Amino acid sequence: MLIVMKPQATEEDIRHVTAKIEAMGLRAHAIPGAQRTAIGITGNPGPLEPAEFETLPGVAEAIRVSKPYKLVSREVKKEDSVIAIGPAESGVKIGGRELAIIAGPCAVENREQLLAAAEAVKKAGARLLRGGAFKPRTSPYSFQGLGKEGLEILAEARRQFGLMIVTETVDPENCDLVEDYADVLQVGARNMQNFSLLKRVGRSKKPVLLKRGMSATLEEFLMAAEYVLAEGNYNLILCERGVRTFADHTRNTLDLSMIPAVKVLSHLPIIVDPSHGTGKRDKVIPLARAAIAAGADGLMVEVHSNPDQALSDGYQSLFPGQFQELMEQISAIGAVLARTVGTTPAMNVAGRRQ
Amino acid sequence: MLIVMKPQATEEDIRHVTAKIEAMGLRAHAIPGAQRTAIGITGNPGPLEPAEFETLPGVAEAIRVSKPYKLVSREVKKEDSVIAIGPAESGVKIGGRELAIIAGPCAVENREQLLAAAEAVKKAGARLLRGGAFKPRTSPYSFQGLGKEGLEILAEARRQFGLMIVTETVDPENCDLVEDYADVLQVGARNMQNFSLLKRVGRSKKPVLLKRGMSATLEEFLMAAEYVLAEGNYNLILCERGVRTFADHTRNTLDLSMIPAVKVLSHLPIIVDPSHGTGKRDKVIPLARAAIAAGADGLMVEVHSNPDQALSDGYQSLFPGQFQELMEQISAIGAVLARTVGTTPAMNVAGRRQ
Amino acid sequence: MLIVMKPQATEEDIRHVTAKIEAMGLRAHAIPGAQRTAIGITGNPGPLEPAEFETLPGVAEAIRVSKPYKLVSREVKKEDSVIAIGPAESGVKIGGRELAIIAGPCAVENREQLLAAAEAVKKAGARLLRGGAFKPRTSPYSFQGLGKEGLEILAEARRQFGLMIVTETVDPENCDLVEDYADVLQVGARNMQNFSLLKRVGRSKKPVLLKRGMSATLEEFLMAAEYVLAEGNYNLILCERGVRTFADHTRNTLDLSMIPAVKVLSHLPIIVDPSHGTGKRDKVIPLARAAIAAGADGLMVEVHSNPDQALSDGYQSLFPGQFQELMEQISAIGAVLARTVGTTPAMNVAGRRQ
Amino acid sequence: MLIVMKPQATEEDIRHVTAKIEAMGLRAHAIPGAQRTAIGITGNPGPLEPAEFETLPGVAEAIRVSKPYKLVSREVKKEDSVIAIGPAESGVKIGGRELAIIAGPCAVENREQLLAAAEAVKKAGARLLRGGAFKPRTSPYSFQGLGKEGLEILAEARRQFGLMIVTETVDPENCDLVEDYADVLQVGARNMQNFSLLKRVGRSKKPVLLKRGMSATLEEFLMAAEYVLAEGNYNLILCERGVRTFADHTRNTLDLSMIPAVKVLSHLPIIVDPSHGTGKRDKVIPLARAAIAAGADGLMVEVHSNPDQALSDGYQSLFPGQFQELMEQISAIGAVLARTVGTTPAMNVAGRRQ
Repeated sequence: MLIVMKPQATEEDIRHVTAKIEAMGLRAHAIPGAQRTAIGITGNPGPLEPAEFETLPGVAEAIRVSKPYKLVSREVKKEDSVIAIGPAESGVKIGGRELAIIAGPCAVENREQLLAAAEAVKKAGARLLRGGAFKPRTSPYSFQGLGKEGLEILAEARRQFGLMIVTETVDPENCDLVEDYADVLQVGARNMQNFSLLKRVGRSKKPVLLKRGMSATLEEFLMAAEYVLAEGNYNLILCERGVRTFADHTRNTLDLSMIPAVKVLSHLPIIVDPSHGTGKRDKVIPLARAAIAAGADGLMVEVHSNPDQALSDGYQSLFPGQFQELMEQISAIGAVLARTVGTTPAMNVAGRRQ
Repeated sequence: MLIVMKPQATEEDIRHVTAKIEAMGLRAHAIPGAQRTAIGITGNPGPLEPAEFETLPGVAEAIRVSKPYKLVSREVKKEDSVIAIGPAESGVKIGGRELAIIAGPCAVENREQLLAAAEAVKKAGARLLRGGAFKPRTSPYSFQGLGKEGLEILAEARRQFGLMIVTETVDPENCDLVEDYADVLQVGARNMQNFSLLKRVGRSKKPVLLKRGMSATLEEFLMAAEYVLAEGNYNLILCERGVRTFADHTRNTLDLSMIPAVKVLSHLPIIVDPSHGTGKRDKVIPLARAAIAAGADGLMVEVHSNPDQALSDGYQSLFPGQFQELMEQISAIGAVLARTVGTTPAMNVAGRRQ
Repeated sequence: MLIVMKPQATEEDIRHVTAKIEAMGLRAHAIPGAQRTAIGITGNPGPLEPAEFETLPGVAEAIRVSKPYKLVSREVKKEDSVIAIGPAESGVKIGGRELAIIAGPCAVENREQLLAAAEAVKKAGARLLRGGAFKPRTSPYSFQGLGKEGLEILAEARRQFGLMIVTETVDPENCDLVEDYADVLQVGARNMQNFSLLKRVGRSKKPVLLKRGMSATLEEFLMAAEYVLAEGNYNLILCERGVRTFADHTRNTLDLSMIPAVKVLSHLPIIVDPSHGTGKRDKVIPLARAAIAAGADGLMVEVHSNPDQALSDGYQSLFPGQFQELMEQISAIGAVLARTVGTTPAMNVAGRRQ
Repeated sequence: MLIVMKPQATEEDIRHVTAKIEAMGLRAHAIPGAQRTAIGITGNPGPLEPAEFETLPGVAEAIRVSKPYKLVSREVKKEDSVIAIGPAESGVKIGGRELAIIAGPCAVENREQLLAAAEAVKKAGARLLRGGAFKPRTSPYSFQGLGKEGLEILAEARRQFGLMIVTETVDPENCDLVEDYADVLQVGARNMQNFSLLKRVGRSKKPVLLKRGMSATLEEFLMAAEYVLAEGNYNLILCERGVRTFADHTRNTLDLSMIPAVKVLSHLPIIVDPSHGTGKRDKVIPLARAAIAAGADGLMVEVHSNPDQALSDGYQSLFPGQFQELMEQISAIGAVLARTVGTTPAMNVAGRRQ
């Protein structure tokens, strides 16, 4: 059930509705919009009666939500959500006019490697740094990340280059540690339906980047996001990273149609990871351009200062020079859709390429 | 690396090899076989030198394992693993001559429902009872299980009917509770690559039932099992439960070729869940028969005393009478492959059907 | 629209309805059943008015068919279709109590090879011989079959061993030749939606074996069959042969749930090809057993007298001894479902295996 | 086997090599490049001996081609193929600097509808008109196209608007008629492995547009193209149109990674059909932009002057106004990759959008 308040409803009216919902043993989620506030109701085992709410002061209408997701849906919130990362003065916004570019190595391997990558991505205009300190790996015998040491190296890169840190958390316990360091908590594809972890990041104050599971439908993807919002954390960014199909020319099949599909149903921003999405360096750049052209709110790209020596996924990491070139291209393509790219002087780039 | 001991190697020889491995900072896993003992080495970041081990007393050969899995593989252990469930005197074995039939409702809903289902499955000859107390659900608003209360109801069913309990654990913390009640810890399909959970059940003394992920390859499935064995718990049963494909006439596409494929590569037993594997009652029975004919070591089947009133997955649960009939059919089909079914008097059944 | 005649309707009544349908510019398909006759109407661009037919003598009801297929559906014909192959006195029936076993090499390579395979499959109890004279191959440079010479070798095998011949036709023109030799016209998976070919075999007097396309849904599969029936050829056998998925441990993923799914919707018989369905010899036997246990009406299995020297698909062909063993196993499993196998003395086999 | 001639090799040298190949009972395919000529050999049942050719005058080297495709590969021809459509003076080129835009309705429904669509797409700057006169339809009862009448309407649109005609041929016999009218012969996804049809269009003088099959791998797609080239028709354009996956938010999953993947392996141009690739109007425009950004050589887009009344696939057809807007956007995105769009004055568009 979704309660839509009238534009002129007062704070008092909203508190009243909320109190009634809670008195029924349910949970109220007030979602302020530019024009009016909506209040989502969750926790109801079966359908509720609209009339019970429509008679309260300030209520415009009570809508039975047929779709299984509520808080993530456009019905609850018409305007695009813009997620603020990091401190207000120096932070980044995802979902607005500016495209969010998250770049860096797959894993933090050592201090030198990470700082070199951070410098390169900063120089090319990215404002968010990726790098895994805890790595979920298919094999128990593969490098599983530097752990806390990796987080400290990431924090140093933030201090040194002013980049916001995006890094993965792998279980609820581990989240206690990761949220002390990260600006964005990443939930990986394999954990998209790890509901304990989703609830845990839902109780965090840090924004969450949720990757699509390898065989997740659109509805499952949005329902996973709903778990996070239902716990109270509305700062969620979706990330398309390819799905598993019969096709064998790429590691995964990047499904860019997810972008317009999400935009219709949800107010949440969506970015694309063309590195895992293709798994091969020579396909990362064309698909990154394509993602921006399809309307993505940003990219998550693997960049390594020395890909051939990377401990994991080196073959899908861009060289710094390639990343620089990519930034120029997406800056020009973004301009067609009235989007800008971080610190890159878009005009010059466009000029150079014409 | 896998160290194969000579048939006449002494306990002393084995301890010696083990000590050397540990002195190198690696982990040794002694795997006793009928003819000889093998010792798996894990924890090595790179390849080891066979010569370093082949000169030790009692060592037949040291083999570089090219496949990414070791402990689960037939190279390490030639004989089929037979997993003992519950107390030695009254327990069940999975992977031997007897087919293991795990039956019961999707979720424990209340005491009456569970005991009715337990009685029905016991009567039909099953020796293991399934029932979820913690339910991973796609929607945060769906019934998530009775929790500890559900576990206590399951324990009562065990006392009353002598059935072994198979129930799901959903995260490492939750496992502390579940292992106090369960005879078998189930790891669900969505958690097949929840590596924190895999490590946790790997440290449990209870056997583990690991379900194949929705889009897991054979290699990924075996690698997930490897995580559990690498922590020291060798009592693992694999479970095929269907994969996600374009096909829309079933909820998942049950992949029975997984049975012979696993049997070639691994010594672990594999059972089949035709209820989730098809998602529709009228397909459960034919596919359950097919699983046994394909060589599965058992079945996991949803049975509900009143499917139409089930809180979850009722449409894929069998009625008690259908389950009874299924037991008779698989008893007759099992006989063709020299397998027997629990407490069902197979001879009579075969007689009745001819 | 489907016109269901009353049980006591006369031939005259049926002719009357048929004439009315044709007068409207549509096509009538009389489908005699054990209890009553149904008349399917095709060719109508939009919905028809039931009342227009329900007032005619002998008509029980006129049903608007919401499903896109008509003639293949159980609504049109309740009883299982049993397809007669070859001459009445010595032929085979598919879809009845007897399981239909079609065996032989992938391609006819030469006279000696084909006759050796024919002898082996005959000896093991099969009554239908497969063998491709025209082979659709992924590469233009691969062996494309012996053509007419291959058909003549097949005809010789029929004369010599009394086996019915199942062989592929690849295009409408080619069908003119193939139907002179074949007892069953096979339409391959790649041609499942080659509608020109479907129409052509629909005008043939020979029964058709239609293989499921590599990514065909149940509805598309039945619609392809509908093309054949709509042209007047009701003698069609469906064949599940695996679909394309992400799974890489088999060539295709054999989808045995197709069997009960088809049985619910359609009166047509369905057999299974575990050779193409798995692509690997060691999986053919378990999956063949599983197909029978799931309720298939028969099997199509590759058998080669010398698989290692086969020009195509040798690695998925059974050795004659393996096929003999398979026949014994499916005879015993078939008995559980009250099905018999060709010329194999089922009683002895069952006796031997117990 | 591929014979690479020296840059200075004479016509006489080439004839000599060709004659030798033909004397061996094989087929020679001379492929002139900017720098040098290569000669592909097809028809050899097994491997050939390089030495046999390397001793001939003018031969640089003889390469055993390990990949199963030859004529379509970059090893045979380094430079991008540019396919000329229609008469030299007024025709279109696909694969060069100019992006090829093929637009129009799914099916030719009547003269008025087709001419209205043709006018609209012409006005927006497209130079190629699509429209099916023969429609392969899943159901035998669906509208199958106007046939010859449809072809004549297409021809009238060509005369009236100067658009080149792209239309589908569905079987070898039908091709005799279609090639009299079409400028480009389209082979649909369902016929990608209809080898009889591939051979037939391979003998045509008209260029071929080959759509990727619903579950075709990259290798199968290129092998299907190889069938056409092996018959002598080198004027082939590939078309990505989405593949079948579990995802249910689009009709197919458009696989844009196919573009860079094809570009690495083959010299053939590749365009994208976002209409069938997504199946929903609101996803066509974003994915069309993405295709161009990923490096496609053009687009095939459904445009209907009145989509809601279309006899087939109306829900995926663009309105003329939407198509106009799309043309402006892809013109601006194309400029980033130094590509131009037909008759659209790109400069103005870019200007308007900045």
